[in-house]
Amino acid sequence: MKMKAAVMTGVGTPLQIQEVELAQPKANEVLVKMGATGVCHSDLNALGDETTPKPTILGHEGAGIVAAVGPNVTKVKVGDKVALSWAPYCGTCEFCVTGNVHLCETAFGPMFEGTLLDGTSRLSKNGELIYHNSLLSTFAEYAVVPELSCIRIPDAMPLAQASLIGCGVATGYGAAVHAAKITPGSTVAVFGIGGVGVNAIQGARIAGAAKIIACDMKVANLEIAKKFGATHTIDVAEQNAEEALKELTGGYGVHFAIDCSGHTGATESAWKGTRKGGTVVVVGAFNPAAALQLPAGGFHRVGKILKGSFYGDTQPYRDFPTIAQLYLDGKFMLDELILGRIQLDDINQAFDSFHDCNCINVGRTVVEFSSQEQKEQLKSTDSVVTI
Amino acid sequence: MKMKAAVMTGVGTPLQIQEVELAQPKANEVLVKMGATGVCHSDLNALGDETTPKPTILGHEGAGIVAAVGPNVTKVKVGDKVALSWAPYCGTCEFCVTGNVHLCETAFGPMFEGTLLDGTSRLSKNGELIYHNSLLSTFAEYAVVPELSCIRIPDAMPLAQASLIGCGVATGYGAAVHAAKITPGSTVAVFGIGGVGVNAIQGARIAGAAKIIACDMKVANLEIAKKFGATHTIDVAEQNAEEALKELTGGYGVHFAIDCSGHTGATESAWKGTRKGGTVVVVGAFNPAAALQLPAGGFHRVGKILKGSFYGDTQPYRDFPTIAQLYLDGKFMLDELILGRIQLDDINQAFDSFHDCNCINVGRTVVEFSSQEQKEQLKSTDSVVTI
Ligand SMILES: [Zn+2]
Ligand SMILES: [Zn+2]
Ligand SMILES: [Zn+2]
Ligand SMILES: [Zn+2]
Repeated sequence: MKMKAAVMTGVGTPLQIQEVELAQPKANEVLVKMGATGVCHSDLNALGDETTPKPTILGHEGAGIVAAVGPNVTKVKVGDKVALSWAPYCGTCEFCVTGNVHLCETAFGPMFEGTLLDGTSRLSKNGELIYHNSLLSTFAEYAVVPELSCIRIPDAMPLAQASLIGCGVATGYGAAVHAAKITPGSTVAVFGIGGVGVNAIQGARIAGAAKIIACDMKVANLEIAKKFGATHTIDVAEQNAEEALKELTGGYGVHFAIDCSGHTGATESAWKGTRKGGTVVVVGAFNPAAALQLPAGGFHRVGKILKGSFYGDTQPYRDFPTIAQLYLDGKFMLDELILGRIQLDDINQAFDSFHDCNCINVGRTVVEFSSQEQKEQLKSTDSVVTI
Repeated sequence: MKMKAAVMTGVGTPLQIQEVELAQPKANEVLVKMGATGVCHSDLNALGDETTPKPTILGHEGAGIVAAVGPNVTKVKVGDKVALSWAPYCGTCEFCVTGNVHLCETAFGPMFEGTLLDGTSRLSKNGELIYHNSLLSTFAEYAVVPELSCIRIPDAMPLAQASLIGCGVATGYGAAVHAAKITPGSTVAVFGIGGVGVNAIQGARIAGAAKIIACDMKVANLEIAKKFGATHTIDVAEQNAEEALKELTGGYGVHFAIDCSGHTGATESAWKGTRKGGTVVVVGAFNPAAALQLPAGGFHRVGKILKGSFYGDTQPYRDFPTIAQLYLDGKFMLDELILGRIQLDDINQAFDSFHDCNCINVGRTVVEFSSQEQKEQLKSTDSVVTI
């Protein structure tokens, strides 16, 4: 089939809106009619990265409707509303069988090589191969993706909001709920208020934390943090974070700290500002050249836990429907994460907006694939989609 | 009452066998007739430490029979066989109520000031105060200790073996079982094969670990480790620990590593030799001037856990009877930890043996307070003790 897509053809150059070819889904693959896709900072990074296989179709945050299924697909059927995960897993490896599907290495090779799980591509243009990206390539009207990337969500879930679940939302929520295992009545610090940090704040809020302390060096981000549930803020450019956290927690330090900043210095502050027996979760990616330095004196005496968390320890089948339902119940804020809605033709505007933005990108520009009219029609026909 | 005790009167000088006075137990205190006490490396350190309050009676590993109880004591009665804990807790603080009684700070002040929990001493000689040590002072025929230091153990438990439970045994066992939470079939590395390390090995063995890999730079200690359950050994003076651990675990690294060595470099090796999603427990005390350096690259991606553990996360009421019963069932090796048995009069021999010993002190010299004859009698009269 032919479809419209935003194609990355060169490093740092604008995406090109082109008509490309998409082959039918093979075994354990699903054809999804994209409803909406978020434009993530990782897409900007990929666009600027020499190592990204080209030409490719970027985009790894999306939601849509199942339009067709390949052989052996059992978990979704045509018409299902799905949010996409860029971390499909094998289900049987060392990590999957111990409840750590987020550590499964199944997607690693294809992710870097720009293919689907079988090592081949369904994308092409005039017979020339186009690479996949993050196994999803959501910057297109349709996508062929692994079955385990398609997580069914409630029919009532709007697609623009659903498109955000699979990346920073799940990562932040999961860092709070699954990695840190935040408990009701506890005190929590979140370092680095970006697209992951605000959702860690939301996870902490939903988990019943009593105090949620946002820590960042940008005052604008601290104000945003309050909207998402932070009860206190620390401007780390002005205040000593360790001392401020202790002052807010009766001298003890927080029970839980989540560092989304990607700075080892923030993790070190988080460690010092956490109480004995407390937990520090690192979800941000450090500079590989850095070293994390923790004070050795009394290390064993304080009984603290330091934990790295990839993808917020997300189990998509558990978490995506949960987050969607929390949104539908008015408990999880997703509307507020949508900074603007555009059509695919205008997608380069979303990339431009990264450069304009003063703050870390807390929210997203969302690309929608259907006009309001089409969406109403889609709704009234109960998600029957013709390819 | 008068009793015989080994008194520390000066820094680094031999203990002096003296007759001293012991006052009756006050509220929530218990008088214990000592049956046996281990001589720990920490006693050697205290003897050499300028800051140890003097004169004092050292000794913090002991077991005996309850000889009298003060007001309000409800958990033990005269005649009970008890193993002693140097970490009595309050039961109601921030840490106690979250299941972390090992982090309770109740004993901290008295421990450093050489008193019981109420800030006073029951020990004296000719009207001159003698300080307690570690709230226990087991190098004496009797000890007045906090009620929560007296943990009842099965009557069948021999006192020499029981005397070892409360320090390195509980710490090593707990590091494996409670801090690391070792699971059946898992792979485990234990760094630092001393009095704590061999018991971490025992904990791993009892928890059903499939491979237990002892890591030390002393070959003699590695041989000892095998006796206690190590299935493999790594001579870290000769081999790269990270590579050797990966080679023994199909390239993954171990599920669990426990570092009892007190060296940050060993913890760094343990971290690198642990698989994604694995857990590293630090139970050894680092040099306070050191810094623990972990590689920052991919830190969040590997999902590992680093945890400091004080006293092996021991809950004495849970763990002391468990360890005693495991011993009685032939599953926990304590006999092998007793290097020699001496009488109190000869206690300085135990200190000399530290200097003679080439290896880290895996085992203990145990001081016994009753001759074999007396022990038989004690047994036949069913633990009736006259003060
Ligand atoms: Zn993303
Ligand atoms: Zn897997
Ligand atoms: Zn000891
Ligand atoms: Zn307490």
